[in-house]
Amino acid sequence: MSILLQGFIVAARSLRPKNNRPLMSISSRVIAVDVMGADLGPGEIIRGVVDALGDRGDYRVILVGDRDVIQNNLTIQSNGDHSRLEIIHASEVISMEDKPLQAFRAKRDASVVRAIELVQSGQADAMLSCGNTGSLMAGSTLKLRPMAGIERPTLATVIPTLQNYIVMTDVGANPNTTPLQMMHNAILGSDYCSRILRIEQPRVGLLTIGTEEGKGNEVTLAAHEIFKKIDNLVNYVGLVEGFQIFGSDADVIICDGFVGNILIKTLESLIMQLKGYIKDEFMKNPLRMFGAVLSKGVFAALKGRLNPETYGAASLLGLNGVVLKSHGSSTHRAIRNAVGIAVSIAGQETARTCCEKIAIANGKIQN
Amino acid sequence: MSILLQGFIVAARSLRPKNNRPLMSISSRVIAVDVMGADLGPGEIIRGVVDALGDRGDYRVILVGDRDVIQNNLTIQSNGDHSRLEIIHASEVISMEDKPLQAFRAKRDASVVRAIELVQSGQADAMLSCGNTGSLMAGSTLKLRPMAGIERPTLATVIPTLQNYIVMTDVGANPNTTPLQMMHNAILGSDYCSRILRIEQPRVGLLTIGTEEGKGNEVTLAAHEIFKKIDNLVNYVGLVEGFQIFGSDADVIICDGFVGNILIKTLESLIMQLKGYIKDEFMKNPLRMFGAVLSKGVFAALKGRLNPETYGAASLLGLNGVVLKSHGSSTHRAIRNAVGIAVSIAGQETARTCCEKIAIANGKIQN
Repeated sequence: MSILLQGFIVAARSLRPKNNRPLMSISSRVIAVDVMGADLGPGEIIRGVVDALGDRGDYRVILVGDRDVIQNNLTIQSNGDHSRLEIIHASEVISMEDKPLQAFRAKRDASVVRAIELVQSGQADAMLSCGNTGSLMAGSTLKLRPMAGIERPTLATVIPTLQNYIVMTDVGANPNTTPLQMMHNAILGSDYCSRILRIEQPRVGLLTIGTEEGKGNEVTLAAHEIFKKIDNLVNYVGLVEGFQIFGSDADVIICDGFVGNILIKTLESLIMQLKGYIKDEFMKNPLRMFGAVLSKGVFAALKGRLNPETYGAASLLGLNGVVLKSHGSSTHRAIRNAVGIAVSIAGQETARTCCEKIAIANGKIQN
Repeated sequence: MSILLQGFIVAARSLRPKNNRPLMSISSRVIAVDVMGADLGPGEIIRGVVDALGDRGDYRVILVGDRDVIQNNLTIQSNGDHSRLEIIHASEVISMEDKPLQAFRAKRDASVVRAIELVQSGQADAMLSCGNTGSLMAGSTLKLRPMAGIERPTLATVIPTLQNYIVMTDVGANPNTTPLQMMHNAILGSDYCSRILRIEQPRVGLLTIGTEEGKGNEVTLAAHEIFKKIDNLVNYVGLVEGFQIFGSDADVIICDGFVGNILIKTLESLIMQLKGYIKDEFMKNPLRMFGAVLSKGVFAALKGRLNPETYGAASLLGLNGVVLKSHGSSTHRAIRNAVGIAVSIAGQETARTCCEKIAIANGKIQN
């Protein structure tokens, strides 16, 4: 079946122009998953995909990577429904140590390159990778190109707070985000938030160090002035400070990629360490251990609440195609959830609305 | 006693040039505490000071603010040793809502202004305020002036991790920190870390988004090159990522004031919310409540470990004088600890070494 599909894809690609929908008809969503280059190996990714297929039935997955490795792992993961799985062979892997752009250019048959090409050609509606972030971002930007009116894509992630979930962008695609790019990111992040968290007119906040007028760095001050001009396009609620991230002050937090990346990495490591610390403290004597048994619901609740695996992938927004990035060290649980996200946001139905808003916003700023 | 001292101070000030040690002999350290403008009111600050005086005996405190308010509160806080307390009256208060620089210039008799002047004149070895941060920073920079060779002061704070404590700077004095200023901050932060955490040759890390060469924003990339040139002056261990803050990778984290401020505010609010969440979850049923009683040591340990009150003040480094800033909402416990810090770092014995290092570093960069 997978060989058949692959043959069909090759034939279809030779017949149609790039960036168009393929000739073959795809009735359900197709998600391409790059199974190579992750820290826990292809088996973990494949297990997550197989589990995900059990969750809902209206999509298919193309596993991209070394065919033998994939087939061996599918033999192990025999429990799930494999009829909606295809394999596309890729002979090369971009490792975490590879230099992003160089590797993307040199390794033409790398799994991540092939997976991006499936989106580019329209054979897949979205792609997911756990590999080298730089290669994924550089490669998908080169192949899929930014949407009309946008300079650079932005990486958006969902952060669990103790009350709800919020979207933060940029978290690492662009460490020198300009005020204009922040404006684009506000439109993209707002759209993403409504799709992924199902919040109508999400409240957009601009992350800074003080809410008084005039406080912030140069980029944020300029972005704030721009945001005020486009408040009919996004529901801009103004400047927000660090302590408001875990409040309920905004649904979408806009920041530059440098701040966002440091913030999410710090928070993730704090939460991981907290879990370890609490566990160690509970193990210190039998009384505490018994206390832990009685109150295990508390920790299950906390773990569930702050679980970074709930939304197991960040999205690269602003490209002509849906690209998702999961952690290098993603577990099968994270991948299962990430595939679910890919399915729910694949299709780009809202891309046109975003492009229209971006064109209007660009116009407002130029005038 | 306090009136006597005040009179003496006025007389002494008229006799000697600014910025010199006073004519009056002060055998022990003197800490000036601005008791006005804090969220919980002067009573909380005064309680913290009185408690602190019980901890060690080799220093005195000048309480600066409305005399009647202070005296009334001292009557309530009758438990402690008041013989080492003085009052200096200040008729005005800079509120949190006041515009920093304007308020500092307009309110000449504000408590924070008077407290800074006590350091400027040498009547106090350090000052502490919980009030308007902007006014404190702008005012102390104007009155005390940056050390030779330094452009702007930096705000340094001690962050509790789960294993130890680290110093982070800048956390909000300068949202547009330049690479050169980061170099100065590395020298100042390193010196502060050795004094406050008693770590010899603390490991200095530069906060960024990836440790590969070439990754980061423009400021960090430039700072990294500069830091490599001065690694005989500070123990520079290189670039560190967000997840390394809670590791044991560095004792001093250097970042720009925008990133640092967002980071500490976010972490503080996350920890506060976590405490509340865990408490609420434990109260949900009697079994959990019993479990909480059995394992209360776990939470006492966690609370003690991540308590932001342990180091109840941030220090403004790089000025000709010791200036400490406590949270606007500081409790008496935080103030008690903050006074302890002020005592331990007051005196500026290491200022000369810092100045020498800064002169050498500036020379290296110019060549």
